Amino acid sequence: MPSDMSLLDGINSLRSVRKFKPDPVPEDKIRIILESASKAASGSNTQPWEFVVVRDANVKTRLKEPMLRTWLERLAGSSGMSPRMRDVYDEATEMLRNTEKVPVIIYCCVDLTRVGKSEEVKYASIYPAVQNLMLAAHALGLATCLTVHGSTPTRGEPEVKKILGIPGHVKLACLVYLGYPAVQLGSPKRKPIEKFVHYDRW
Amino acid sequence: MPSDMSLLDGINSLRSVRKFKPDPVPEDKIRIILESASKAASGSNTQPWEFVVVRDANVKTRLKEPMLRTWLERLAGSSGMSPRMRDVYDEATEMLRNTEKVPVIIYCCVDLTRVGKSEEVKYASIYPAVQNLMLAAHALGLATCLTVHGSTPTRGEPEVKKILGIPGHVKLACLVYLGYPAVQLGSPKRKPIEKFVHYDRW
Repeated sequence: MPSDMSLLDGINSLRSVRKFKPDPVPEDKIRIILESASKAASGSNTQPWEFVVVRDANVKTRLKEPMLRTWLERLAGSSGMSPRMRDVYDEATEMLRNTEKVPVIIYCCVDLTRVGKSEEVKYASIYPAVQNLMLAAHALGLATCLTVHGSTPTRGEPEVKKILGIPGHVKLACLVYLGYPAVQLGSPKRKPIEKFVHYDRW
Repeated sequence: MPSDMSLLDGINSLRSVRKFKPDPVPEDKIRIILESASKAASGSNTQPWEFVVVRDANVKTRLKEPMLRTWLERLAGSSGMSPRMRDVYDEATEMLRNTEKVPVIIYCCVDLTRVGKSEEVKYASIYPAVQNLMLAAHALGLATCLTVHGSTPTRGEPEVKKILGIPGHVKLACLVYLGYPAVQLGSPKRKPIEKFVHYDRW
């Protein structure tokens, strides 16, 4: 499945997309995406990742309940939000409300028995793989959105693990929503590097 | 600075390289690499990353001391290592011993005042950017190695932060060694996806 998107163009045009077409994602694309995820480095090359690929609408409907409920609880508890943040959060709420309609949700996990104890090693052994996953999807004309709603102790992780049958020694790191984009977004706007780069010392 | 490496080829050929040529890395390439890092998503698009780019050999020599010492202490405390792990660790030791000769070391940090409190949000807002950084370097013919030696509380982080003047509210997530590769490595070997992918439930 050739894709001629260049590496630098892909990095510079990947956006978080929260609206998807209903079209299913072909099996062979899912395979390439997951293989690409696994090409990332991990602590001592332990490859501690596990991915649960959810396509069944009934399963998604069950997963939506704890994810949406804990999210709305968070929103209710937050105040004084800027208009920009309100927009970001409204989009996130909308995506969560449509969970069962998103073609694929990939639950990205780490097997804690196969990775060092420190939080740095643990997460450095999964999020680079997730970035590969999203970039590979982008190369294949698909869109993604990484979210931690559903993967932290206060955002429904315990319930999600139960629904998916994920064992206790496996930690959810994040979810990736995946499908064909229903919107076309421009390149991401970011701060100029002078704002976050230091030379030789802080 | 055009690079025609495709996105999928780049993902599938990026390797951790621990031996570098002494050649300096051009300023404009460092710039592209850091801009690419910043194109990653982050929690609520807060862009909480900060990068300290170290090229000064004296600074690198000072940084090497706590990083190498804590690493050798770890090695002395470990036993029953497999031959494969011994090889991996020997290479890591060699890279650390040569720290001051590595052209560039990028200390990748998160400003904790700009990111959510949960460890998932914190690290999901830096390691995807680091993967972008390494992929962009790869596109430009450069090689990288991500390591957490120097970025965890028991692996020299406090001393490293002091040497670099990194303030208390900033967490080191990892280091990336960067330079032109002195070795050419083949594509990474990984487990087949059947070993780590589940459909609809674990």
